[in-house]
Amino acid sequence: MSTAGQVIRCKAAVAWEAGKPLSVEEIEVAPPQKNEVRVKIHFTSLCHTDVYFWEAKGQNPLFPRILGHEAGGVVESVGEGVMDVEPGDHVLPIFTGECKECPHCLSEASNMCDLLRINTERGGMLHDGQTRFSKDGKPIYHFLGTSTFSEYTVVHVGQVAKINPEAPLDKVCVLSCGMSTGFGATVNVAKPKKGGSVAVFGLGAVGLAAAEGARVCEASRIIGIDLNPNRFEEAKKFGCTEFVNPKDHNKPVQEVISEMTGGGVDCSIECTGSTQAMVSAFECVHDGWGVAVLVGVPSRDDSFKTHPIHFLNERTLRGTFFGNYKPLSDIPGVVEKYMKRELELDKFITHSVPFLDINKAFEYMLRGEGLRCMIRMDA
Amino acid sequence: MSTAGQVIRCKAAVAWEAGKPLSVEEIEVAPPQKNEVRVKIHFTSLCHTDVYFWEAKGQNPLFPRILGHEAGGVVESVGEGVMDVEPGDHVLPIFTGECKECPHCLSEASNMCDLLRINTERGGMLHDGQTRFSKDGKPIYHFLGTSTFSEYTVVHVGQVAKINPEAPLDKVCVLSCGMSTGFGATVNVAKPKKGGSVAVFGLGAVGLAAAEGARVCEASRIIGIDLNPNRFEEAKKFGCTEFVNPKDHNKPVQEVISEMTGGGVDCSIECTGSTQAMVSAFECVHDGWGVAVLVGVPSRDDSFKTHPIHFLNERTLRGTFFGNYKPLSDIPGVVEKYMKRELELDKFITHSVPFLDINKAFEYMLRGEGLRCMIRMDA
Ligand SMILES: NC(=O)c1ccc[n+]([C@@H]2O[C@H](COP(=O)([O-])OP(=O)(O)OC[C@H]3O[C@@H](n4cnc5c(N)ncnc54)[C@H](O)[C@@H]3O)[C@@H](O)[C@H]2O)c1
Ligand SMILES: NC(=O)c1ccc[n+]([C@@H]2O[C@H](COP(=O)([O-])OP(=O)(O)OC[C@H]3O[C@@H](n4cnc5c(N)ncnc54)[C@H](O)[C@@H]3O)[C@@H](O)[C@H]2O)c1
Ligand SMILES: [Zn+2]
Ligand SMILES: [Zn+2]
Ligand SMILES: [Zn+2]
Ligand SMILES: [Zn+2]
Repeated sequence: MSTAGQVIRCKAAVAWEAGKPLSVEEIEVAPPQKNEVRVKIHFTSLCHTDVYFWEAKGQNPLFPRILGHEAGGVVESVGEGVMDVEPGDHVLPIFTGECKECPHCLSEASNMCDLLRINTERGGMLHDGQTRFSKDGKPIYHFLGTSTFSEYTVVHVGQVAKINPEAPLDKVCVLSCGMSTGFGATVNVAKPKKGGSVAVFGLGAVGLAAAEGARVCEASRIIGIDLNPNRFEEAKKFGCTEFVNPKDHNKPVQEVISEMTGGGVDCSIECTGSTQAMVSAFECVHDGWGVAVLVGVPSRDDSFKTHPIHFLNERTLRGTFFGNYKPLSDIPGVVEKYMKRELELDKFITHSVPFLDINKAFEYMLRGEGLRCMIRMDA
Repeated sequence: MSTAGQVIRCKAAVAWEAGKPLSVEEIEVAPPQKNEVRVKIHFTSLCHTDVYFWEAKGQNPLFPRILGHEAGGVVESVGEGVMDVEPGDHVLPIFTGECKECPHCLSEASNMCDLLRINTERGGMLHDGQTRFSKDGKPIYHFLGTSTFSEYTVVHVGQVAKINPEAPLDKVCVLSCGMSTGFGATVNVAKPKKGGSVAVFGLGAVGLAAAEGARVCEASRIIGIDLNPNRFEEAKKFGCTEFVNPKDHNKPVQEVISEMTGGGVDCSIECTGSTQAMVSAFECVHDGWGVAVLVGVPSRDDSFKTHPIHFLNERTLRGTFFGNYKPLSDIPGVVEKYMKRELELDKFITHSVPFLDINKAFEYMLRGEGLRCMIRMDA
């Protein structure tokens, strides 16, 4: 019996208040409207960004809200005008979209779609500003247009990447956010040559995905830098060959790296969000050809500061958003890389919990335990 | 009668003291040593860098010295081990060299040769630290390894670009420094697409060469920015289509440019040396794909400061030295571009004086009159 066109009653993990445990309860999910898709979520994982907006420190709090943006699922039904996916398609909902018509979507270089670029403030759908979620008639806000902590969710069609149905959703689901961000920062932006040297600042999930990118590019030296030495052992699995803890040295870490490498690394990728690490990541690349890539999200009042001579000596500094991948056009190809074993994902998934235990995933992350916790919707 | 192996007595413009007019007088030029070339200079032009080291403000003064680094000449004789040029070859001496063996010379990306990279402090030749110039036995220092304000000079073979002998030396001589720097910053580094928009900060000789590069790339909008509105009329000849004087606006010039262009230019080239202009040049490029290129040489204590979000929104910032041209490998090709009329140089040469009047060239530059003054050695 088809549920298309019907309101679906299903379980969702609702964040009713900042910092309070999510409550898994029954809600209503309205049918998809124009250019929208309703997706049955099979697996979802927890990312720092969810925790950040759940804590709601330094932003406008928006509650009740259904968080979640790393997920894999199957299209249940589609709204008016949807041509690109149909019920039964396997998809990854993605927090930033692709309209395929704006100057960014038409540019080869950009993935920052004017229409569907990440929007952390919006709580309703683009079409009518309304929510598709409710509880006893009371609206529940969306998050990043994805809200994957629900058995069913409604997403703009420009925010679902249609992927190979053979791909295991409990693995490729992590490509919806952090893994693609770090991996793409290396392979699409820093682009180390075979045999080159790479420095990765910050060995969280994003930094380890950047290291994985360097491993896939066959970099010969992958130097992992973190203030937390507990990260080093695990990072070896992701290709890191050497480690530097800035706290172990009396001089700036960029000088340490420059000495280790005879003048600097060929490229560096910053995955910390710390401006100090951003400056170090830039200044530690070799003159003449070094490329530094910024990934970490800074605070509002931060400032990046360096002497311009570092640029004039032919260094390049670039930032990237979502690893420069166009979510719909490129992510299916990254899934294929995983299928061909060119890219490893399983090692990022260190925990797994049934949906009812979703708050445990938050606890793991708050304790800094592991990388990704997979949340199984059907369990 | 060959002069090879002999000391040559000839005229040179000697800077005996900081800021005092040069004195054109007879000096001795020793024969070229190992890997050196003696060149008869036919034409030389004056660049700001000559004036800067002549004024010797903010550096260690080194006098007496023969300045000059933009020139065209003919090889008179060569020292031991020189294979790449021979007497009679037409050459441009260049202030930065190419050893063809170091990591920079072997890298496709870099032109910052470890051995022959610009060195403003050195007053002798690399081979033995000695000078090849003297006056009554008293040594006279070299400048940038070129010292072209002399009828004959001695240069490391890695600092002479062998060019088409049909090329008029009184025109292509300006490719030894500023014109290649600005032109290359655009065509090699910023690389605007046909129809793209370009902002050029600073409309001195270097900035106008950058604008010429944008014209050659067929940019559709070339916005010239200068604090001095006297520069605007002339800049039209170099392809500038619009002008902005930051002094005419109450808001930062990057905002003005962003509004003029619906979100920012595709690329910008900073040719001022002012860090304020560097920041504006960076912040005025479009998110998603904008590229900003720094060319201007900053002061020792300057600092480049911006919010890192500008990088994360997929902007790129790069610096360049000598337009990323490898002096020996690439400049002969730029000369060919001039020969094929793909690049205009004549419009840069606004004055011309006989060698004896070289101090007039300094006066023109100090008064900010014109772009390049050609100094005719045989006149
Ligand atoms: N640009 C994007 O599209 C995008 C997407 C997802 C995440 N991010 C950002 O990437 C960054 C990393 O995300 P994550 O989930 O891996 O975070 P994480 O907190 O798990 O890892 C960050 C690591 O950086 C280390 N660190 C902090 N300051 C440091 C310093 N000064 N020097 C060296 N190491 C330092 C920490 O010890 C930690 O191990 C965050 O800023 C996040 O917001 C960006
Ligand atoms: N990187 C290299 O290889 C290389 C080579 C040669 C010259 N340069 C540098 O290029 C720069 C330009 O050289 P030039 O000979 O054309 O100098 P110039 O003095 O003739 O021109 C500079 C122009 O910039 C303008 N300007 C200054 N501050 C400005 C600001 N804040 N906003 C807008 N305009 C501003 C000035 O009014 C002037 O017209 C210098 O810094 C020089 O040292 C670099
Ligand atoms: Zn778009
Ligand atoms: Zn995320
Ligand atoms: Zn070299
Ligand atoms: Zn010069």
